[in-house]
Amino acid sequence: MNTPGSKQPSWFPRPPSWLSRPILVLALIIMSFVQYPSDHPFPIQNLPYGVFSTDTQPATRPGVAIGDFILDLAALSQTEHWAKSPVKASIFQTANLDAFVALEPEDWAAFRAFLTSILSPSSPLKANADAVLVPRTAASTHLHLPINIGDYTDFYASYEHAFNAGVLIRGPANALQPNWKHLPVGYHGRASSIVVSGTPFHRPTGQILDKPTDKQPIFAPCRKLDYELETAFVGRKHIFGMVLMNDWSARDIQTWEYVPLGPFLSKNFCTTIAPWIVTPAALEPFKVKQYEHDPALLPYLDDPEGYNYAVPLHLEIKTAESEAYSHVSTSSMQHTYYTFAQMIAHHSATGCNLRPSDMMGSGTLSAPGNSDAPNDGALGSLLERSRLGREPFELNEGRKDMTWLRDGDSVRITGVAKGEGYSIGFGECEGTVLPAWAGA
Amino acid sequence: MNTPGSKQPSWFPRPPSWLSRPILVLALIIMSFVQYPSDHPFPIQNLPYGVFSTDTQPATRPGVAIGDFILDLAALSQTEHWAKSPVKASIFQTANLDAFVALEPEDWAAFRAFLTSILSPSSPLKANADAVLVPRTAASTHLHLPINIGDYTDFYASYEHAFNAGVLIRGPANALQPNWKHLPVGYHGRASSIVVSGTPFHRPTGQILDKPTDKQPIFAPCRKLDYELETAFVGRKHIFGMVLMNDWSARDIQTWEYVPLGPFLSKNFCTTIAPWIVTPAALEPFKVKQYEHDPALLPYLDDPEGYNYAVPLHLEIKTAESEAYSHVSTSSMQHTYYTFAQMIAHHSATGCNLRPSDMMGSGTLSAPGNSDAPNDGALGSLLERSRLGREPFELNEGRKDMTWLRDGDSVRITGVAKGEGYSIGFGECEGTVLPAWAGA
Repeated sequence: MNTPGSKQPSWFPRPPSWLSRPILVLALIIMSFVQYPSDHPFPIQNLPYGVFSTDTQPATRPGVAIGDFILDLAALSQTEHWAKSPVKASIFQTANLDAFVALEPEDWAAFRAFLTSILSPSSPLKANADAVLVPRTAASTHLHLPINIGDYTDFYASYEHAFNAGVLIRGPANALQPNWKHLPVGYHGRASSIVVSGTPFHRPTGQILDKPTDKQPIFAPCRKLDYELETAFVGRKHIFGMVLMNDWSARDIQTWEYVPLGPFLSKNFCTTIAPWIVTPAALEPFKVKQYEHDPALLPYLDDPEGYNYAVPLHLEIKTAESEAYSHVSTSSMQHTYYTFAQMIAHHSATGCNLRPSDMMGSGTLSAPGNSDAPNDGALGSLLERSRLGREPFELNEGRKDMTWLRDGDSVRITGVAKGEGYSIGFGECEGTVLPAWAGA
Repeated sequence: MNTPGSKQPSWFPRPPSWLSRPILVLALIIMSFVQYPSDHPFPIQNLPYGVFSTDTQPATRPGVAIGDFILDLAALSQTEHWAKSPVKASIFQTANLDAFVALEPEDWAAFRAFLTSILSPSSPLKANADAVLVPRTAASTHLHLPINIGDYTDFYASYEHAFNAGVLIRGPANALQPNWKHLPVGYHGRASSIVVSGTPFHRPTGQILDKPTDKQPIFAPCRKLDYELETAFVGRKHIFGMVLMNDWSARDIQTWEYVPLGPFLSKNFCTTIAPWIVTPAALEPFKVKQYEHDPALLPYLDDPEGYNYAVPLHLEIKTAESEAYSHVSTSSMQHTYYTFAQMIAHHSATGCNLRPSDMMGSGTLSAPGNSDAPNDGALGSLLERSRLGREPFELNEGRKDMTWLRDGDSVRITGVAKGEGYSIGFGECEGTVLPAWAGA
């Protein structure tokens, strides 16, 4: 519950007014000349933004996913169809989405309306669409980081994850730190180590304790390599969009290094994001009530109209010895105790200047369990699922004693929200563990 | 002591080979046609890099400080004198030093030799130098951030500071965390909130505990605003240069927020750096022996030729009610337990990709005291000097009960190393505390 009568500061991030329009009704009747099945993750109701290149045109450039194609915005901006665009051509004649992300929500809305029109069945583009539609899944098409990430912050906003981790580390009585229910705990991450889905990474080598009681560390390949099922948002005053994220974590390096200044090398060897940024406009139909806040939050975090997005998130593992993925977990984007608007409000409260192309992670998203135990099918990390590695579990495909990630293991996160007659997909966020560097 | 016989990995950051030349001897005989007194902080032996603009030419561009002037590198690159430059003109025809910083140490050395020649008494530039020399201290000349900072990391590498802070927080028996003598503790800071000297900032408002035993926080202006006397380096494989830094800290916000993920809002409202980047070539004569490491460091941190730089650093405060600065502390750049090369080696050991324009802070630099007490005249923070605010102290000018910073207080850090017949200055790193935003 929020404090009754508390006044919200004028700078509190708010969804733009156009989001309150009943676009769900509109969504049911709009279609595109691009053909795709009704359960396709990239219908015209989605229109996520990304950056791509092709073997024949290796310059990276912005695009929008539509069905099995990418609408090449750089190419489109050089055609006569751009005459109706509310956005200057130069905004998309660049290597990333930074210039577009730096515009205002009204511009994003106007451009979405333009895209919806230009892709509609009656669009004049239909006659010469081949020039601007690129096969999305072709081997010759490559996806890249969508923005030049400025600063990267990772929150720790899932109550269930924080509680589960706290129980394992400190026991149920002190599972949550005293500050946790008063502010969205977060820390600065490493922007340079964020990579796009499909980029493999080497198992990190770092300082760990060989035995927990040791005083002298060793320098060795990480033995407790974990994933973190997350989502992240791009935005400053307003949220431009959401991506899937896997914040890979080296738990043994983390345990040894993180007191008192927080995670450092245990997190900055690799963080993977999916290539497609899904907009709030596409997610509007999937709003759900935010978490109840007890104790009440301070007024600067008051967000009476706050909401989360119900987007199921699936995590699968393909082990080195297996041909197929095993489903491990289904959580949801909605499992943050704090809304994304509250994260922004907190982040900027002391005067920190947020920039358009900053990225902010939700933290690991685990779903509620029952009163006695976590929901094993909805946990966002191996730390939780294997109880700090003490309780191996069985995968559908192959491995019977899963604890931490082994060399050759791949992890894939996907997210699809099912609407009325259509789906909103987030693409996939995949990464594979390579062996530690030789000699390490 | 380092582990005897341990092998250093080939990727261990090493000073470039040209640094081993006896340039001290050379330094004694080189001069410039630009006139300055013998104790000037910016003689030809220094040649620090910065970025500036002028009222008549508002485009920001790179320059080099020489005496009371800035040599405009963008302007120089468009003259016939550039014919002898080993670096392309386009490198400096930009708004910052990023392109130059991304070159190799051999390029930096060659360009330094070019600068030394072009500024020498017999240089042909002397005849028409007015076109490329800008008055450095004129009101119409403005200094800016020298690089577009990628990621910002702050270490915690001063033994004396870590020990002093630990004693105050946990007592002398547990002053250092178990990991402290095994690795350079560090955390990711916020790149966007780094500002250039002279930029005032508002006192941050955030969550604090009104009384230490409170369970419910309040949202209020910081009451324990502190400075941190630091230096920072720019570099990746090799160090491009050093700057003065003040990592302003809100101690009450920090106390409440920092467990378990480290400092966040307590640090990201403002970090100030001096505008001039001083190069290793200029600091070569000031190398001193590194700290002894006991216990021995792991081989990946082994740095038998490691060194620190002896550069005295002065911190002064001008209180809101005073006309003049009071000297508060003299520490030195040499007081890091880990060498800068060790910080780079550790940072990149797990696979973290460092980029040329990243910035890394040393952490607060306090100097050794005697066996019973810290050296009050050489402490890098008010936390240490005022014993967590419990022991007010007197400033030379005005205030008799100094604990934490008040609105209107200014803090200035300067650094000058005295060589044989010349000085190497770092400029100044100054900032003033403005009141908290109205309504906060």
